[in-house]
Amino acid sequence: MVIGGDAAGLSAAAQARRLRGASELDVVVLEQGPEISYSACGIPYWIGGLVSDRDRLMARTPADFAAQDVAVRTDTRAEGIDLSAGEVVAAGGERLGYDHLVVATGGKPFRPPVPGLDADGVHGVHRLADGADIRAAIAAGAKRAVVLGGGYIGLEMAEVLQTRGLEVTVVLADPLPMAQLDDDMGERVCAAMCGMGIDVRPNQPVREIELGVDGAVRAVRTDEAAYDADLVVLGLGMGPETTLAQEAGLALGTTGAIDVAHTQRSRSHPEVFAAGDCAQTFHRITGEAIHVALGTHANKQGRVAGSVIGGRPARFAGVLGTAMTKVGDLEVARTGLCTTQAEEGGYDYRTELIESSTRAGYYPGSAPITVKIITERGSGLLLGAQIVGGPGSGKRIDVFATAVWAGMTAETLAGSDLSYAPPFSPTYDPVVVAARVASRIEQG
Amino acid sequence: MVIGGDAAGLSAAAQARRLRGASELDVVVLEQGPEISYSACGIPYWIGGLVSDRDRLMARTPADFAAQDVAVRTDTRAEGIDLSAGEVVAAGGERLGYDHLVVATGGKPFRPPVPGLDADGVHGVHRLADGADIRAAIAAGAKRAVVLGGGYIGLEMAEVLQTRGLEVTVVLADPLPMAQLDDDMGERVCAAMCGMGIDVRPNQPVREIELGVDGAVRAVRTDEAAYDADLVVLGLGMGPETTLAQEAGLALGTTGAIDVAHTQRSRSHPEVFAAGDCAQTFHRITGEAIHVALGTHANKQGRVAGSVIGGRPARFAGVLGTAMTKVGDLEVARTGLCTTQAEEGGYDYRTELIESSTRAGYYPGSAPITVKIITERGSGLLLGAQIVGGPGSGKRIDVFATAVWAGMTAETLAGSDLSYAPPFSPTYDPVVVAARVASRIEQG
Repeated sequence: MVIGGDAAGLSAAAQARRLRGASELDVVVLEQGPEISYSACGIPYWIGGLVSDRDRLMARTPADFAAQDVAVRTDTRAEGIDLSAGEVVAAGGERLGYDHLVVATGGKPFRPPVPGLDADGVHGVHRLADGADIRAAIAAGAKRAVVLGGGYIGLEMAEVLQTRGLEVTVVLADPLPMAQLDDDMGERVCAAMCGMGIDVRPNQPVREIELGVDGAVRAVRTDEAAYDADLVVLGLGMGPETTLAQEAGLALGTTGAIDVAHTQRSRSHPEVFAAGDCAQTFHRITGEAIHVALGTHANKQGRVAGSVIGGRPARFAGVLGTAMTKVGDLEVARTGLCTTQAEEGGYDYRTELIESSTRAGYYPGSAPITVKIITERGSGLLLGAQIVGGPGSGKRIDVFATAVWAGMTAETLAGSDLSYAPPFSPTYDPVVVAARVASRIEQG
Repeated sequence: MVIGGDAAGLSAAAQARRLRGASELDVVVLEQGPEISYSACGIPYWIGGLVSDRDRLMARTPADFAAQDVAVRTDTRAEGIDLSAGEVVAAGGERLGYDHLVVATGGKPFRPPVPGLDADGVHGVHRLADGADIRAAIAAGAKRAVVLGGGYIGLEMAEVLQTRGLEVTVVLADPLPMAQLDDDMGERVCAAMCGMGIDVRPNQPVREIELGVDGAVRAVRTDEAAYDADLVVLGLGMGPETTLAQEAGLALGTTGAIDVAHTQRSRSHPEVFAAGDCAQTFHRITGEAIHVALGTHANKQGRVAGSVIGGRPARFAGVLGTAMTKVGDLEVARTGLCTTQAEEGGYDYRTELIESSTRAGYYPGSAPITVKIITERGSGLLLGAQIVGGPGSGKRIDVFATAVWAGMTAETLAGSDLSYAPPFSPTYDPVVVAARVASRIEQG
């Protein structure tokens, strides 16, 4: 029995089925909404018109799963979990028994406790219905949008709303967008946004959503100003959706997400698994509890739960917090520890920031790229990296993510044999340049 | 004293100078040609018109080096090395004493021993003068080009000559272009070339360059046919330029390049260093002697030689044979061992080939990507990878290059935290998909 028909839940179901045939195990997935397996990350691009058809965001249908003997029940809300009886209580009181349970209830957008936030015209970017609502608002003539928050969703929504012709203001509680970056890198993102004509308002926590007499959104008010808005978008990050788990008595961790072991088993009730945005995970470097809402982790965690249920030992290997996005032509990516995290973790660290180009300087389309890396002083171990730059910059973060994952030093990475061709890289790839500068300084 | 004013020689000179000041060490670079520090890899793109100005291929000038107290003497050909006297004999008989010598004489295009190959109209793509000659031939009305060989230079030249409006035939001795790829990947490259309208003629070693009564190139003849040509381009790879080293008595290795230790010291004469395309190197995985002509290695090897001369221990860390190019929109990349190399090396290996997309399937511009990986059976260690696909495919090889360099298994790579965003990747990056398929099969 799986509660939640998206990345984590469906991966768990598919993997359990792969390892144990239909004669051994019934696999049932309950999904409260009408659709399964959609790409929440694609919603901004659907709103922006880059993805023409909502159905293109749907990777797989219940019929696809039925063909693999996985029963998916959409529009079926789990109202409760009776751990002692081993039953899920569905809407209408139907009680469904299980031998193995995977809780994959996903995440929910952070909603600051300010007046007016529940009004029409304030939208998350989480469910397909959110996307449809925002599209409808634009079609109905919305002219001014305020995006709350400057994380990935905030940046992407600012870009696509501007593409659709709206005036866009981004209101930040923080001093800079992309709080997962160091300030010197976040400043570059901020400059690019301003250069695109996006109105960025830092250091202004939202205080109220002002409504018109018709009850519709009229403005976003901070301590400093009121920003006119026909449309307000929440880009303040995602928290875990744990209502069902909490009511059932599953213990939550320090992050507020369901506390699980590396096998994705609940620490308080090991007979229950939790995976995806509702579950807590851990940082590969520091080992600390962390909550990251991202489809890739959800897929992998679901797969781990499905493997264990299917009888094959498996463990989730942790996260580095690798992430990537773009705003206009500027690509933004990060992995591992940023300076603040290294500081908090008690690491003795160095940082190096280099400027290079995405291609050979003489090759058309060569664009600036800034790479910042963080290494442990003494050992030279790579702790993290951040990249901001033109087209072709961002995916280079995967080299750092792999190197950090493998426990490489900057010196080892600097010696490695990365590809070179003028249309794709300077002779020394910017990754190598950064690693080399860091290792040279380590050598004294 | 450094012989050769390009990647390896100049890196050695700069690094030695960095470590030892002008009061301790005179650094002199002899270059036989009129220019230094040019990008040979950029010549095809200059011919193709993508790089407007020849000077843009020049990274640094003698004046730049003079400002760092490195004396560069252009148009100064070293005619001989007197190892016992510790002197280089320059053109005109001038004898220049040295305490440390770096031989960085570079490479030379392979020239098959066939009649007519020395005629006007047969061009390497090695020196700036070659580029100027080919540009002049096109300007003079050349209509039909035959490219001999289907390696990186062959592919790049076929593309740029076609861009310039010539009819292009590529004549291969091998069954497929890109002999460094497995056949199933090379077939994809071949199909893309044919789809662009490039006439590819495999399995036809060239027998003769036919000349007209004016002594100019008229056709390329193989056992099967004669292909009309106004212009013939050598794309058969680069060998080491070792004339000077051989005459001086420096021992060559099994590859025909100068035999050096990891410190870049000659094995027969450890007081002499050799670096770059003239020097032999070794494969990181197999440890075997190999010759690879590539600017990145030349830079690093020169730097090792300069470090050792400067008093800092350094060792070159080997190569994986990472390489990348493009033909039209198709990107081609490889690293580590291909199937043939794994076979020859006596490895018990598996291969996996997966098809995926460069971006989320629904995101505009998503293109097919094929990834093939080779792992050691039992250990699951990554031995090599090959990628062929649309824009954004090729640089993903760097993740594999890093993973192979670090000695990662497919399973470890499959668990790693690579970046995901719809404009740049499906939820699971194709790199992870390939690693996962390989590790799943290893698990049985």
